[in-house]
Amino acid sequence: MPRRIVVIGGGAAGIGAAGAAKGTDPSAEVVVFTEYQDAAYSPCGIPYVHGKEIPDFERLFLGSKQQYADQGIDIRYETRVDSCDLSAKTVSVGGKQVPFDALVIASGWNYGKPDVPGNELTGIYYMKNIREAMEWDKVLDSVRSAVVLEAGPLGLEMVTALAHRGIETHLVDPTPWALSMATDPDIAKPVEDSWVEMGAHLHFNTKLEAILGDDKGAVRGVRTSDGEIACQLLVVATHKIPNIELGQTAGLKVGTTGGFIVDETMQSSAKDVWAAGDCIEVPHGVSNVPVQGLSGSHAYSQGKVAGVNAAGGKRAYQPVYVPWGMVAGKWMIGGVSFSETLATALGIPFVMGVAQGISRARYYPDMKPVKVKLLAEPGTLRLIGAQMVGGEGIKERADFLAMAVRTGITLRDLATMENVYSPPIGALNEPIALAAQNALSKL
Amino acid sequence: MPRRIVVIGGGAAGIGAAGAAKGTDPSAEVVVFTEYQDAAYSPCGIPYVHGKEIPDFERLFLGSKQQYADQGIDIRYETRVDSCDLSAKTVSVGGKQVPFDALVIASGWNYGKPDVPGNELTGIYYMKNIREAMEWDKVLDSVRSAVVLEAGPLGLEMVTALAHRGIETHLVDPTPWALSMATDPDIAKPVEDSWVEMGAHLHFNTKLEAILGDDKGAVRGVRTSDGEIACQLLVVATHKIPNIELGQTAGLKVGTTGGFIVDETMQSSAKDVWAAGDCIEVPHGVSNVPVQGLSGSHAYSQGKVAGVNAAGGKRAYQPVYVPWGMVAGKWMIGGVSFSETLATALGIPFVMGVAQGISRARYYPDMKPVKVKLLAEPGTLRLIGAQMVGGEGIKERADFLAMAVRTGITLRDLATMENVYSPPIGALNEPIALAAQNALSKL
Repeated sequence: MPRRIVVIGGGAAGIGAAGAAKGTDPSAEVVVFTEYQDAAYSPCGIPYVHGKEIPDFERLFLGSKQQYADQGIDIRYETRVDSCDLSAKTVSVGGKQVPFDALVIASGWNYGKPDVPGNELTGIYYMKNIREAMEWDKVLDSVRSAVVLEAGPLGLEMVTALAHRGIETHLVDPTPWALSMATDPDIAKPVEDSWVEMGAHLHFNTKLEAILGDDKGAVRGVRTSDGEIACQLLVVATHKIPNIELGQTAGLKVGTTGGFIVDETMQSSAKDVWAAGDCIEVPHGVSNVPVQGLSGSHAYSQGKVAGVNAAGGKRAYQPVYVPWGMVAGKWMIGGVSFSETLATALGIPFVMGVAQGISRARYYPDMKPVKVKLLAEPGTLRLIGAQMVGGEGIKERADFLAMAVRTGITLRDLATMENVYSPPIGALNEPIALAAQNALSKL
Repeated sequence: MPRRIVVIGGGAAGIGAAGAAKGTDPSAEVVVFTEYQDAAYSPCGIPYVHGKEIPDFERLFLGSKQQYADQGIDIRYETRVDSCDLSAKTVSVGGKQVPFDALVIASGWNYGKPDVPGNELTGIYYMKNIREAMEWDKVLDSVRSAVVLEAGPLGLEMVTALAHRGIETHLVDPTPWALSMATDPDIAKPVEDSWVEMGAHLHFNTKLEAILGDDKGAVRGVRTSDGEIACQLLVVATHKIPNIELGQTAGLKVGTTGGFIVDETMQSSAKDVWAAGDCIEVPHGVSNVPVQGLSGSHAYSQGKVAGVNAAGGKRAYQPVYVPWGMVAGKWMIGGVSFSETLATALGIPFVMGVAQGISRARYYPDMKPVKVKLLAEPGTLRLIGAQMVGGEGIKERADFLAMAVRTGITLRDLATMENVYSPPIGALNEPIALAAQNALSKL
C-alpha cells in the first residue's frame, strides 16, 4: 500500500513539503489541506501590486491547479482540518477521519491583533490572502490617507508601496526606528529620510491607543500616544505569531518563541509528525537561540526538508544565520544575523568596522552608495553579523555574508578579499573589504 | 634622514604603492615617475566613453594633481626612468642619478603588436593613454566600420562599445568563442547572440593575416584566414604583455609568464626592490601556477602591499582566485578560477552543476536570468571554479564565489545556503544554490 503523507497548509512550507515528498517517494499519496481557494501563488508580491510596481495580481500565481494534479499532489482547497489524533494517526476533516502515515504541519502564522478599542471596525487590513488583497486593492483607489502599524518587514514594504501609490501614509511604531529588531539607526536613517521625501509621515516611539470609527463602523482615524491621525485605512503589519493551535491541541511541544519545536530533520516532538515554516522555531547559528517567523525562502527550504524525511528520505536542515534584504523607500537594506543594537542588547562582545563604498566605478552612470557594517567576534575575528544600506547588490552581499558567518570567515579574510572591478558593475574597492579593513585598522 | 621611496609607474599599482608608502611612513619622501601627463585617472572607463555610456572623459580623472601634492606624493609627470642600478640604489632619469632607499617597479604592460604586414599603418588603435583616447574618440565620429582584434576582456568591452555607438563592428579572434581563455562556450553564447542582435559581426577561429592600407598609409581593411574585411579602424586588444625591460636589465628575475617574480610581500628577487601590477606574476590559489595580467583592482591591492612593505611596514598578499566580471553585449558575464574548458584542458578532475535561475521574483518587473555553473573537486566537493552569465548580480556573486574557493567552501555548503528572498531583489531560489543542488543530485 502506498504511504500516505498528509500536509496541513498550502503556503511555501506546505507546497515545498508536498513536492519534496512526492519527489522522494513517487508512489506516495500526498494530500495537502488548505483553507484557501489557492495554493500556488506568491503572497510576498502583494505589496508591490498595491504599490503599482507589479501591474496585476494574476502574475503572482505560480501555475495552475492542474500542474499540481499532474505532479500527483492532491490539494484539497477551502478545506479545514479540525483536529489531529496523533496516536490514531488521523486528521479530522469535516467530520471524517483521514488516516496518514506521515503528517507535515505547515500551518503558518497570524497577525497579532491590536489589543485596543476599535479593532472590530471595517477598514482594517490584515494582508495575507490574495483574493482578499484583490478586494483591498480596489479599496485603495479611494483611500486618501492610511496608517501602517509597525515597522517590521511588511510595514516597510507597505509604507513604501502606499507612498509610491500617492496615498498620504503614516507609519506608527512603538520602537525608535524602522526595523529596529533587525537593524541599526544609522542603517535605517537613509530609508526614513527617503520616506519623508516620498511624502510619508513617520511616528516612532509611538503607541497605538485606539482605532477610531465613524457612524458606519468604518475607520476614520487612530489615536496614538502622540495624538490623533485621520485615515480611512489601517494596515496591520504586526509580528507574525505562529499558528499552532491545531498541533498544540494534538500534543506537539512548543518552544520559547511560541513555535513548534523540531529537530534538524524538521520532525516535531511526535513520531511521524513533521512541521515547517512560520509555525516552527529553529536555532540561530551564532547564538543557538531559537528564532521564528523567517522568510518565504526559509519556509520553502524547511518544507522540502520535512517532505523528504516524511517520505522516508534523509535530509537535514542547517542552523540559520538569516540573511535578509528588501527595498524600503528609495534604498535597499539588508543584513545577516546580529545588528550592532541587538548584539549590544544581548551582551555579545564584538569588534566592528563600517565603510561607505560605491556599487560601480565612481564615474559610471547610476553608481549607487553601498554602506557596510561588519561585526566580528573579538580575538578570532570571525564574522557574527552585518548590516547594509545601499542602491544595489544588497541581496547578493547578504547571501555571501550569511555563508561567511556560517563557515567562520574572518575580518582578515574579508579585508584581503579579491573583487571584480569593472566600471559598469563593480568599483575598484569592494565596500565589504573596506569595512573589514576599517575594523582591522582600529584594532 | 627620511627614507626615500621611488615608484616607477603612475598606474593603479604605482599610485597604490605611493599612497600606502606615505600612509605607512608619513616622513618618507615618495617620488613617482610616470611617462604620461596624468596619473590620477581610470583607464578602465575609456571603452565606456567611446560607447557613449559615459558622457565625457573628464569624469575619468580621479582628482587633481594638487591632491597628490597635498598628500606629500611627488609625481614627476612625462618623465622616463632610463635605467636602474640596484647595487648603487639609484635610478637614472635624464642623465641624473636619483638615489632610493626602496624602489617599487610598477611598469605595467604593453599590447602584443600584431606580427603581420601593415602594422605600421595609421588607424591602428592601442587603447591605453587617456589623452590619446580623447583624440581617437574624435576619429570614431567618422569611422563607419571597425575591426576589433581578439576577444579578451578589452575586446569584449570594445565590441560592445563600438556596436552601441552604431559603428559596423567586426570581432576577429583566433579561438573558437569569446573570452575562451576564461570561460566556456555555453556561457559566452548569450553574449555572442546579443552582439549579433546589436549588429556586430563575429569571426571566430579566424587569424589576422595582414592589415591593408590605402595610398595615404591608412588602414582600409584587414585580411584574415577567412577573407577580407573593409574597415577604417583596427582596435588591437591583444593580451597584456608585462613591461619588464627596465627591471630585467637591472637584474630582476622573471618567471614563466614573463612577469617579475615576487614573494608574498611583493618583494622582487632583489633586496629593497618591490614590484606590483601587470608587470609581475602571482600564484593562483588553486593550481599554484603563476598568473599575470589581472584587473586594476588586483594591481591596486598589490601596489598597496608593495608600498606598505617598501616603507618598512608589514603586509602580505594572498594567492589569487581571480573573480572577474564584465558587461558584454546585453549581458553580464563573470566567473572565478577555472572554467570547465580550462579545467578539462589542464586535466584537473572536477564534478559540476549547472542551473538556470533568476535574479528577482519571477513576476517582478525587470527580472533577469542568471545562469550559474559550479566546478568542485571530486570527493571533498570543495569549489574550484565558477562561471556565470546573467542580467544582474554577477559581480557580487563572483566576489562571493572567489572567497568560497579560497576558504574551502563545498557544494554541500552552497546547496544548503540561505538566501534573501524579496521580490524586487531576490528570487525564492538562489541560482548558486540551485547549481550546487544539481551537482549533488548527479553524484
